[in-house]
Amino acid sequence: MIKVTLIGAGNIAQHLISTFLTTKGIEIVQVYARNTTTVIPELDSRKIISKYSDLIEADLYIVAVSDDAIAHVSAQLPFENRLVVHTSGAAPLEFLNNKNRKGVFYPLQTFTKGKPVNFKVIPICIETATLEDYPILERVATAISDNVHAINSHQRKALHVAAVFVNNFTNYLYQLGNDICNENHVPFDILKPLILETAEKLLTLSPKEAQTGPAKRNDISTIAAHESFLSNENQSTIYKILTQSIQNHGKKL
Amino acid sequence: MIKVTLIGAGNIAQHLISTFLTTKGIEIVQVYARNTTTVIPELDSRKIISKYSDLIEADLYIVAVSDDAIAHVSAQLPFENRLVVHTSGAAPLEFLNNKNRKGVFYPLQTFTKGKPVNFKVIPICIETATLEDYPILERVATAISDNVHAINSHQRKALHVAAVFVNNFTNYLYQLGNDICNENHVPFDILKPLILETAEKLLTLSPKEAQTGPAKRNDISTIAAHESFLSNENQSTIYKILTQSIQNHGKKL
Repeated sequence: MIKVTLIGAGNIAQHLISTFLTTKGIEIVQVYARNTTTVIPELDSRKIISKYSDLIEADLYIVAVSDDAIAHVSAQLPFENRLVVHTSGAAPLEFLNNKNRKGVFYPLQTFTKGKPVNFKVIPICIETATLEDYPILERVATAISDNVHAINSHQRKALHVAAVFVNNFTNYLYQLGNDICNENHVPFDILKPLILETAEKLLTLSPKEAQTGPAKRNDISTIAAHESFLSNENQSTIYKILTQSIQNHGKKL
Repeated sequence: MIKVTLIGAGNIAQHLISTFLTTKGIEIVQVYARNTTTVIPELDSRKIISKYSDLIEADLYIVAVSDDAIAHVSAQLPFENRLVVHTSGAAPLEFLNNKNRKGVFYPLQTFTKGKPVNFKVIPICIETATLEDYPILERVATAISDNVHAINSHQRKALHVAAVFVNNFTNYLYQLGNDICNENHVPFDILKPLILETAEKLLTLSPKEAQTGPAKRNDISTIAAHESFLSNENQSTIYKILTQSIQNHGKKL
């Protein structure tokens, strides 16, 4: 049985708590929450604490707080030389205070409050400052996921930037598509099967193989028609830049 | 039984042929193909023709050729006053030759050669020049899909532009994510669950509700870290423009 304590009660912490509660081999020792009412109801309320001085011994402390708070929160922990990890894709290992052993436990997924996730398929990227600490973090990760990767800080930074492209920016393109539909009185729902298929295609094709459309086939007349259709300046700017970028992609400049 | 003839044997034509062959109430009369060897093998080879003069009577002729070829091909048809439709999202009704009755039968999906699709869930956007022709086109569309919409030429143009954003541009962002992973020796596969979840989120949330990330929450330090991480000028330009656009979205300029 590995004893795990969560520091934080936000979105990621709550998803981890739900999962750990039903995972064999993992025991949640405590959850630290500034506001104890935010913690999920399935958890025994005696395990919820709001004072750092109430923290008792555990094998692993997972600091699931915002990037900006990692340094401050990890400095408040009233013990030394225990294994403390954060859950951020963007923050380096060094954000954690030096008095404890350090690591990262980064589940690479977009979490929505209240929507259950299947951790089995979620990639968990782990890193520890020392080789000795790696096995215990790996045991916790593999207890909840079949998709665990040793990822160092540089690689994690790359993954985090890439995730912004494929998640945040992609969702923003959905939003622009939604706006174009609204402005022209067409239900956005018509585009949803296309959106799903675009993502699912990647299970069998690389993005390069899957690329289609007027920019890819250099269909000048369709591109011109689209540009004259778009009256919104923001939509038009993004259309032009992404079209040019697709046209030039892979070309030596 | 509705008698349908396909003109063309490309990607969309082949997917339609496969579907019509197993659809009750639809009979494929003929398939016109310049190169008769490209047509799918399940089709009775006597139905495959390569001369326009061999075309016999049908209730509906579906011209499934590239946008540029619609005018020329529809002008070659050796009959008048029959219902002829094209399958393009970008081409107006007017591309079809005037000697026949006109319409559009636009399946809004990305088709991959050799990958079967489930037409039942694919939106089919239909339009006819006259009200009288609408019911027969609707019967063909509803025979293969549960997702049929009356969409006029202006709306179809909007949908086609929006589809470029959510499909072509989105796939291109996947490609940039893939490049960033390759350049930093991280397997792109780690991002695939995130890509799928980003698309599937739209089944329960609007893109606006689903938007997350450093740009949305105006996390200046993460944005700065990402910008300094990206050394490729193309990636960096796109990162900056989409970040600014997310930050300004919905604001009155």
